[in-house]
Amino acid sequence: MTLLYPLDAALDRDLRLRLLGTKAAGLHEMVALGIPVPPGFTITTEVGAEFRKTGKWPDTLAPELDCALEQIEQRLGRRFGDRANPLLISVRSGAQVSMPGMMDTILNVGLNDSTLGGLASRHGNEWFALDAYRRLIQMYATVVRNIGIDRFQFRLTALKTKLGRPRMPDSELSIESMQELVAAYLSLTEEASGSPFPQDPDTQLWDSIAAVFKSWGNARAVRYRRMQGIEEAIGTACTIQAMVFGNTGMTSGSGVVFTRNPSNGDKHLYGEYLPNAQGEDVVAGLQTPVPLTASATAPGKEATSLEQSSPEAFAAVSGYCEALERHFGDMQDIEFTIEDGTAYILQTRVAKRTARAAVRIAVDMVREQVLSKEQALVRVDASSLEQLLQARLPSERELASRGVVPAATGLPASPGAASGRIVFDADEAVRSAAEGKDVILVRQETSAEDIHGMKVAKGVFTSAGGMTSHAAVVARGLGKCCVVGCGGLRIDFERRTVHLSDRAEPLQEGDLLTLDGSTGKVYAGALDLVASATVDELAELMAWADETRRMRVYAEADTPQAARAALSYGAEGVGLCRTERMFFAPDRLFAMQCALLAVEAEQRSHWLGELERAQCDDFVEIFEAMNGRPVTIRLLDRALQELMPEDERSLRAIADALDREIEEVAQAAARHRESNPAFGHRGVRAGLTVPGLYDMQLRAMLRAAHRCTERRTAVTLEVLVPMVAFTSEVVALRAVLDRAQAQVFKRPTTLFKCRFGTMMELPRACLIADELAQHTDFFSFGGNDLTQTVLGASRDDANRFLPGYRNELGLIASDPFTVLDPQVIELIRIALERARGLRPGLLAGLCGDHGGSPDSIEACERLGLDFVCAPLSQLPGARLAAAQARIRQNSGC
Amino acid sequence: MTLLYPLDAALDRDLRLRLLGTKAAGLHEMVALGIPVPPGFTITTEVGAEFRKTGKWPDTLAPELDCALEQIEQRLGRRFGDRANPLLISVRSGAQVSMPGMMDTILNVGLNDSTLGGLASRHGNEWFALDAYRRLIQMYATVVRNIGIDRFQFRLTALKTKLGRPRMPDSELSIESMQELVAAYLSLTEEASGSPFPQDPDTQLWDSIAAVFKSWGNARAVRYRRMQGIEEAIGTACTIQAMVFGNTGMTSGSGVVFTRNPSNGDKHLYGEYLPNAQGEDVVAGLQTPVPLTASATAPGKEATSLEQSSPEAFAAVSGYCEALERHFGDMQDIEFTIEDGTAYILQTRVAKRTARAAVRIAVDMVREQVLSKEQALVRVDASSLEQLLQARLPSERELASRGVVPAATGLPASPGAASGRIVFDADEAVRSAAEGKDVILVRQETSAEDIHGMKVAKGVFTSAGGMTSHAAVVARGLGKCCVVGCGGLRIDFERRTVHLSDRAEPLQEGDLLTLDGSTGKVYAGALDLVASATVDELAELMAWADETRRMRVYAEADTPQAARAALSYGAEGVGLCRTERMFFAPDRLFAMQCALLAVEAEQRSHWLGELERAQCDDFVEIFEAMNGRPVTIRLLDRALQELMPEDERSLRAIADALDREIEEVAQAAARHRESNPAFGHRGVRAGLTVPGLYDMQLRAMLRAAHRCTERRTAVTLEVLVPMVAFTSEVVALRAVLDRAQAQVFKRPTTLFKCRFGTMMELPRACLIADELAQHTDFFSFGGNDLTQTVLGASRDDANRFLPGYRNELGLIASDPFTVLDPQVIELIRIALERARGLRPGLLAGLCGDHGGSPDSIEACERLGLDFVCAPLSQLPGARLAAAQARIRQNSGC
Repeated sequence: MTLLYPLDAALDRDLRLRLLGTKAAGLHEMVALGIPVPPGFTITTEVGAEFRKTGKWPDTLAPELDCALEQIEQRLGRRFGDRANPLLISVRSGAQVSMPGMMDTILNVGLNDSTLGGLASRHGNEWFALDAYRRLIQMYATVVRNIGIDRFQFRLTALKTKLGRPRMPDSELSIESMQELVAAYLSLTEEASGSPFPQDPDTQLWDSIAAVFKSWGNARAVRYRRMQGIEEAIGTACTIQAMVFGNTGMTSGSGVVFTRNPSNGDKHLYGEYLPNAQGEDVVAGLQTPVPLTASATAPGKEATSLEQSSPEAFAAVSGYCEALERHFGDMQDIEFTIEDGTAYILQTRVAKRTARAAVRIAVDMVREQVLSKEQALVRVDASSLEQLLQARLPSERELASRGVVPAATGLPASPGAASGRIVFDADEAVRSAAEGKDVILVRQETSAEDIHGMKVAKGVFTSAGGMTSHAAVVARGLGKCCVVGCGGLRIDFERRTVHLSDRAEPLQEGDLLTLDGSTGKVYAGALDLVASATVDELAELMAWADETRRMRVYAEADTPQAARAALSYGAEGVGLCRTERMFFAPDRLFAMQCALLAVEAEQRSHWLGELERAQCDDFVEIFEAMNGRPVTIRLLDRALQELMPEDERSLRAIADALDREIEEVAQAAARHRESNPAFGHRGVRAGLTVPGLYDMQLRAMLRAAHRCTERRTAVTLEVLVPMVAFTSEVVALRAVLDRAQAQVFKRPTTLFKCRFGTMMELPRACLIADELAQHTDFFSFGGNDLTQTVLGASRDDANRFLPGYRNELGLIASDPFTVLDPQVIELIRIALERARGLRPGLLAGLCGDHGGSPDSIEACERLGLDFVCAPLSQLPGARLAAAQARIRQNSGC
Repeated sequence: MTLLYPLDAALDRDLRLRLLGTKAAGLHEMVALGIPVPPGFTITTEVGAEFRKTGKWPDTLAPELDCALEQIEQRLGRRFGDRANPLLISVRSGAQVSMPGMMDTILNVGLNDSTLGGLASRHGNEWFALDAYRRLIQMYATVVRNIGIDRFQFRLTALKTKLGRPRMPDSELSIESMQELVAAYLSLTEEASGSPFPQDPDTQLWDSIAAVFKSWGNARAVRYRRMQGIEEAIGTACTIQAMVFGNTGMTSGSGVVFTRNPSNGDKHLYGEYLPNAQGEDVVAGLQTPVPLTASATAPGKEATSLEQSSPEAFAAVSGYCEALERHFGDMQDIEFTIEDGTAYILQTRVAKRTARAAVRIAVDMVREQVLSKEQALVRVDASSLEQLLQARLPSERELASRGVVPAATGLPASPGAASGRIVFDADEAVRSAAEGKDVILVRQETSAEDIHGMKVAKGVFTSAGGMTSHAAVVARGLGKCCVVGCGGLRIDFERRTVHLSDRAEPLQEGDLLTLDGSTGKVYAGALDLVASATVDELAELMAWADETRRMRVYAEADTPQAARAALSYGAEGVGLCRTERMFFAPDRLFAMQCALLAVEAEQRSHWLGELERAQCDDFVEIFEAMNGRPVTIRLLDRALQELMPEDERSLRAIADALDREIEEVAQAAARHRESNPAFGHRGVRAGLTVPGLYDMQLRAMLRAAHRCTERRTAVTLEVLVPMVAFTSEVVALRAVLDRAQAQVFKRPTTLFKCRFGTMMELPRACLIADELAQHTDFFSFGGNDLTQTVLGASRDDANRFLPGYRNELGLIASDPFTVLDPQVIELIRIALERARGLRPGLLAGLCGDHGGSPDSIEACERLGLDFVCAPLSQLPGARLAAAQARIRQNSGC
């Protein structure tokens, strides 16, 4: 019984999916529900695998198939190959994982010169029968015989040209022309393949089955699977099903219906119907369909809805929709055909929807008691919630339909969208913004000197740099949309023009430009933005998520503004405040440069003192915003070379400030240059070897905390040490912290809690986690740097080979800088095992860009981490993902 | 019994070392052997630790000490503090690990105004007694009271000046002057410390003991321990011993004797003797000692040897020497004193010796049946053997004694030493060398264009670059000495001058310069080199090592010359042939650049074809040299950016060759620039994403192997894939190899063996070692890159913080790029456990710079690796280290 499976038998669900594929499995479920589905059966994936391996059919297949076909014949009272009342069948592919359009299907099998008449007379429609025949010939020839489809299109156009109307619709061809077309197709098939179209229905059938199974291995499908990371071994099943026809006349038709509105989630049927047409005509979009429901009919339009024209058929479809949605517990996307007034459901599947609709529907279905809260929570794609928070452009497809195409593409560095006037420098940005203009700052790259311009710009666009460039980092911190690394972009600062690409005309300063920071697309001119949808149900869904999840969700926030935004997005604390970003402002950068380049201890402490005051003020504001919630501050972690001055003016200013020669300062700055700065003198290494640097930061934190507690504001400070490789580093710093704490807090206070944590971002730290656990209050695993070091791949450079690995070569399934690599997870597991073996309750979590990715959050749940720390815009998604992970973990899947 | 320990009691050896320190433990052993040692006892390290912690003495110490002192008094018939026949004692420090000169010792304790006369009359020498007294006062004052020693020297000089002979030897001071000096020292002590010199012998004694224990914690000792990685907790012991005097007259004296010649290992006593002097006078070197033996007396010199002047005393010393060497089974460095004709041994320790002497002595002692072969093997410092292979400079100390000091210091990039005339470019180097001149090529940094100059130069010296810079890599490959990264070096190409440092005068082109590539020191002028010593016994020692070791020892060799040298140094195969170094020659670099920058597939294959031919020829020569032994060839592993053209001329040539615009080529080349090239587009990542690159290399290897086997030369090819992170990379490449092999070797041949191996140099590879083991014949762990990734520290940049970590901060004990880091070892252990869990016999070894380090080789033995691969010059050392590791492993220590 593994060979064939009739559409009305019971079978375990998992086995069904594996043996029959998703689509056929759906058909089986519908049959079980009593939904009218054309009768049929499925040849299992195992037969296909065997056939692809050996080139032979199992001996038992033919008799089983005959037997199954006979059952269909009996149910419908038609016979396969019968002249008078022929049974026509479809031969369809379908795998466990949906691969839309990638594999082949052949319809109308069983039709030939002699059964043609029987079909025509059964439906009283000769044109329809000829149309079905020519479709079969074309599908058979292209799929089984590999003849190019353009050769058939050429014959069709030739015929229409001969008739004097090269662009006439197919439906206006006469019976005679259709006969001529069938003859032309038959002779083309024979000419092109050296063998005539098989008139024998059995030959048609077996050829089609073989072709469907083989289509698993066609180049298109293989490439698709590689890109999607679909397992190669599974294979497709082959479903054989009686044909039903929507094109037998005006009491027939085909349609597609969503059980709810996929755009906003409203609960009403939403779909289209095409009278006297097959399903593929609806999909092809050559004719304009009518609405499904009367209420959806646009006022004043002539088109009559299905509800109005065929109330009974509509009522039937409507009932099936309700039954299917209730059965599957989710909004369905349903294909149906009405043949001579009788409705058949051909396919049902879970409907795609916008993030907004997904939230709405999930919450509604709980209210309707279709779903439990837990089911509703896992129903929403956590990563899609980010869309709900930002102004955005219409979808690319929508723009394309209006003829709007991108003029250039860069890296999507900071999400959101913005339109504005082009400016080429920060000062001009400030001037224009002051006049009330929206501006887009266009630069080769940005530096500390551009910050005032970035602050007032609506968006930032650079030709150089990557996802971690200055522009990208600062823009994300400011919540500005940003596109970077657009190679085609050439800026002519002399002429104040910019070329977006070689082809396009240059734009002038002041011209309008639109950026999509979520996709990296750039458009000439201003485009209307779609407002960020407010979804009332989101708050409710989030409340359920917060009740459900075990892990805490913290935010990345480097500024008081970001801290406040984090609270509004539901963060329970700041999990990562990167102090290095506090040195981007020009005056602070200058002080930092002076401190780093000072030769005399006195000078160094002077400039460190300046920085301490500034940092202290920042921390006070953040502590106040978080009001006693944990604030995790990471000590400076930036390659020193990135803090060095580059231009003459900065060098001169520093030389003046330090009373040194400019050449000396330039040489000292140059000595900080590194071959591989991401793996060089940064983090705790710089903090311990540059005298006073970390001491200054620790004092600033403690003094800020002290100032707050004096005003009765509670503070929970978590100090985080970056780039730890040796236990001795942690011991040395803890001593500095303890000393500074005793100095600043002369009297103990219950308002202040201080914890000391280690960034676990190097393999060495993970391997000595047991040692580190003895000197540390918590661990924060750094996804970015762990990925860099475990893979030995610099994030800034990995784009040279990772895309090729994923796409052309199919060597990896996902980008390890987006989804935590399994071996990074393994190393975290080893670290936790070692550390918790010694200190069972040790707090640990994940920070970095992976902290917002649902897959990574799921891994964190499995690892038993206590918290994740996500970027601002991904906080709601992270809260949801943490709940989903908990639900899956509890259910053991 | 843990408080005191008399010098004649038995005790377990380990406990003895821990409680008594090395030096006192040696005294105990000598007493047990019947060697005359001045009687005494030791206060254990535990008492010292307790005292340092609490500041108090254990209650039982004083009575125990009195009792022990009494035993000495009885043995010698003298009493501590007795006016007539006073016992004088020394109070000495001594820890388990020798820390020469770091801690304090006080001699002559027990002498005071009233015992002075007893001492003088006992030895009939008043001057001597006064001398002993002034020494005690000075030592007590400087050690116990922290008075600066210069203040005593000032008083002494003042006295001599008053006498009109400011430079007179101390020995010529009159009795009266000595009395005046003692008085001056006594008053100085009281003035400077506010308290008189203690006349009470007990006070002297207890103050001295306390000072000795406290000296464990003095800044000098702490710093020394930090640098040597000595454990802080152990502490020093304190030995109290009766004084014997070598300065009581001409029948007394002090000497130092080595039981063999420490320079060449000859078996004869080797030492110096100073009549009428204390041991410290010999060490201080103020007076010229006489030889020990008659045969060592230089002909025509007046000095009479000890053997001649005191034959009985010499015979006694000579006998003790023989007994001690035999007892300890090793050459000894012995201090002795002759007091009134009686010889006492004060100290014996294992003697330091040159590498040459070490080999000679080890082999001789086996012949003399003092040592077993295994004992002899562990006796020689494996890392010292490298010295035996190269011409070298005299030691720095030796040079300094001649007034020769380095003019600059860079990084020691390639060992050996060379003198020659300065040239500033490769062409000039070739011209001068053709005239028969030795030249040193001095450059800012080198590139492919300099190779012809490097080949003819005696040495290479650059201001930029690190240990892996072009200059360093090429020089090591060529076996040239090289110093790089000399920051102080400034070259003025206009004036053809070079400043070695800010202080020194500039040198002109043509001036002489000497490089020491083993230390990084650079000297102005030409220095005479010490020829590489040929040691006859080395071959025998190596033969024993080869019999003993379990691990195979392979060589790093990138050229046929290097392969032949490797054989002569005893390599069993080539463990690492780096193909990237084959592209340094200008014509090949050009072909590689054309291949990488070609747009059309046809052009690319043309240039790859050129490279294939060239590589094939190289491989043939290497295979022939190794004649069937394994040759492990690593596929290209170099950041593509390092292969890109930089100057206009190269760009133009490439543009012409590819028929492209020069700007296009420049842009294409610039696109290969990376932020962190060591972690970027290199190794298998480049090999798989640059079409045809690895295919070309694999074909070249196979065709070379084929050509050899056709000529009946056996070939064992081991292909090594660098930078593997994913199993899919290995699977993809193995398929390419299998395909190419089938194409090249149409018929199978027993002359050809091919194995496929993975470089294990990324943490990810180690974690998936079980998966990789299924697709791979062997593993080669790459120490350099594993260290980089486990520590997250780029080797080129780590020097910015590792020296500070080791020295000033004391955070780490050794340089992880020299000695395998414990966590790198742990990751290798994990990888082996996973891989061999699945494939128990999987071959695995270590390559990279650690492969030559004895510590790392010992780790490899413990890990159960099958081979190590060492740089050429370290091959003998590696063979010895592998044997030593095996011996230690077998003996379970």
